[in-house]
Amino acid sequence: MLAGHYEKMLQNKSVIRELSEFATARGKEIGYENVFDFSLGNPSVPVPEAVTETMIRLLKEENPVTLHGYSPSLGIPSVREKIALSLEKRFGVPYRMEHIFMTSGAAGAIAHALRAVTVPGEEVLTFAPCFSEYFPYVNGTGAKLKMVPADTETFQINFAAFEEMISEKVSAVLINTPNNPSGIVYSAETLGKLAAILHEKSEQFGHDIYIISDEPYREIVFAGVDAPFVSSFYENTIMCYSFSKSLSFPGERIGYVAVNPACSDSSKIIQMCGQISRETGHNCPASLIQLTVGEHLEETSDLSVYETNKKLLYQELKKLKFTCVEPGGTFYIFPKAMEEDAKVFCKKALRYDLVLVPGDGFGCPGYFRMAYCIDTKKVERSLSAMHTFVRNEGYIK
Amino acid sequence: MLAGHYEKMLQNKSVIRELSEFATARGKEIGYENVFDFSLGNPSVPVPEAVTETMIRLLKEENPVTLHGYSPSLGIPSVREKIALSLEKRFGVPYRMEHIFMTSGAAGAIAHALRAVTVPGEEVLTFAPCFSEYFPYVNGTGAKLKMVPADTETFQINFAAFEEMISEKVSAVLINTPNNPSGIVYSAETLGKLAAILHEKSEQFGHDIYIISDEPYREIVFAGVDAPFVSSFYENTIMCYSFSKSLSFPGERIGYVAVNPACSDSSKIIQMCGQISRETGHNCPASLIQLTVGEHLEETSDLSVYETNKKLLYQELKKLKFTCVEPGGTFYIFPKAMEEDAKVFCKKALRYDLVLVPGDGFGCPGYFRMAYCIDTKKVERSLSAMHTFVRNEGYIK
Repeated sequence: MLAGHYEKMLQNKSVIRELSEFATARGKEIGYENVFDFSLGNPSVPVPEAVTETMIRLLKEENPVTLHGYSPSLGIPSVREKIALSLEKRFGVPYRMEHIFMTSGAAGAIAHALRAVTVPGEEVLTFAPCFSEYFPYVNGTGAKLKMVPADTETFQINFAAFEEMISEKVSAVLINTPNNPSGIVYSAETLGKLAAILHEKSEQFGHDIYIISDEPYREIVFAGVDAPFVSSFYENTIMCYSFSKSLSFPGERIGYVAVNPACSDSSKIIQMCGQISRETGHNCPASLIQLTVGEHLEETSDLSVYETNKKLLYQELKKLKFTCVEPGGTFYIFPKAMEEDAKVFCKKALRYDLVLVPGDGFGCPGYFRMAYCIDTKKVERSLSAMHTFVRNEGYIK
Repeated sequence: MLAGHYEKMLQNKSVIRELSEFATARGKEIGYENVFDFSLGNPSVPVPEAVTETMIRLLKEENPVTLHGYSPSLGIPSVREKIALSLEKRFGVPYRMEHIFMTSGAAGAIAHALRAVTVPGEEVLTFAPCFSEYFPYVNGTGAKLKMVPADTETFQINFAAFEEMISEKVSAVLINTPNNPSGIVYSAETLGKLAAILHEKSEQFGHDIYIISDEPYREIVFAGVDAPFVSSFYENTIMCYSFSKSLSFPGERIGYVAVNPACSDSSKIIQMCGQISRETGHNCPASLIQLTVGEHLEETSDLSVYETNKKLLYQELKKLKFTCVEPGGTFYIFPKAMEEDAKVFCKKALRYDLVLVPGDGFGCPGYFRMAYCIDTKKVERSLSAMHTFVRNEGYIK
């Protein structure tokens, strides 16, 4: 009498995990420094020292009963308030405490946002390429996730396909900019057009359509790239943020939902998130972690390594004649494979100790993802492996 | 197009929260030290100093990229292994790492356990009096929670009522010993009888019936009381543990699921918990917190204050002629109200700045809960308020 739904999920092996396990095993043979592991999106730079100092200070100075006490179910009020005011200051949108709900990272934020605004039978649209975990988040609500095919020229939105797919059943559109896996940042033009279509369709269908905006890479934007703030374009935007990448804090599971104050139900959606938590037993992120990020909202780890790595890789990939859109942020790049089946291509790459992830799992077959959140020295050494790979396999002469 | 299910939940106000808000407001008028607030089950003693020292050491000495890095979805393996071996050593049940899943407290543990072994349409039974949050946990699975009426003589299990209510539809029985709100510890006789009935019924119905054992108060057991280990009585036991009370760590949201190794599907259930997390976006508890508790599995805060408080209160309540079963653990006591409607009784108590919680929310009308996780000095001062209350209101002469 086990729940068959979850039992079945056990059969789907994660390609990324398998690749990462290969990398670990191979590392034991030849030394991990010789495995060019581009499989995992784990930050490679440390949390800022000031964050560590804050944690130590809280542990030494605060009353432990209060410090480790229960957080209210929506999050610690002082932290929620600081987040709201920081967002207002930075992006000009008048968030207040009642628009913020503390979560266990962006994963928790997206799962809560989806449950608040979708019901079984509805549809959620997202745009390829995208993070594969969107499927379980949407499945958990009883709604169905449909993926709009990619615009592989730019990795902005394929609006022709989108307009064909958007129907009365759609309650939310899930976007991710800067994007995993493409590294692309949606332009103001893209966001403006998306908002215009959603306004028109909301009116036509007679119900709200929400944008759920997954923004864990918001602080990783490269020089000269404009990263417009999604909520400024569309009232019914539910932003899902994580400190995992900006503060190199992924294991501490901390992020938030911020509902645009212009959204008609903004504070009600936040209250509903608290009810959703009651059912999932999720409750709050750890109190110590909430208090800590509350003191470092406008700081980040030294993220410059990602831009350095991007430059090196992008240049080399172009030199090797890969088709590739230049990333505007994140620590991912998403070139076209040099043969039709990216899975075959990535399998061959393993012979050269290059661990690349086929794009199929991101809804974009024929492409592959490289996560370059690794040492720059290793990226440099990987370039000649890349060169040997494409030459030896006959992809270039 | 908000999800009506969660919108509706907003209308149910929490009685405990309202009482606690009253206490806070009244505290501002007359000083919180003069409000005898027995409403909330928040630990009143600090985390052991050694725990704080461990956290500071980890922060100072560990590589921050590893320390704050992603935990595998089932939890950090070294921590899971230590928990398994500690349980084996203490209780003689041969747990291994594959039987342990790290969660955000007992809430997360129960919600995961329920989702693993129940499907929509099934029933879960629990025994009054019980923690009111069991309802949302079960509702979240699509199953239905039914509460077996209390045996108010002993607050052990009302087996006559249980045998009438157990049907083919029942997939799990949710128990809580030591018990919130009664403070009672189930005896070996109770657990033996429960196991015997479940064995018989599993056979009769041709499917497994699980015990989901909610054990956050396991370490708070008073002198001379025997607290038998539930899993030793029944193979299909899924234990849900929390460090919230034992280490006074509730805000840090840390606990685990431990499936009895004798359960036929034990390691599969743990794997399924990982899949359940994918849908709820819950993922793991914070890495730093996991690593910390892993080093203090067999320690507790100084819990002696709870026993001191219990003695004081129990003696006084008996002296005042309350009907009351003596607690064997926890920091709760659950006397019979001195008029039929405990809500009216508790409302009158507020006039004396006594904040008591009516038993209705725990499925046991006519009784009330006192959470005595407060300063002993305040408990002492509350005794005369209690005396004045029952005398002035004419309950005793």
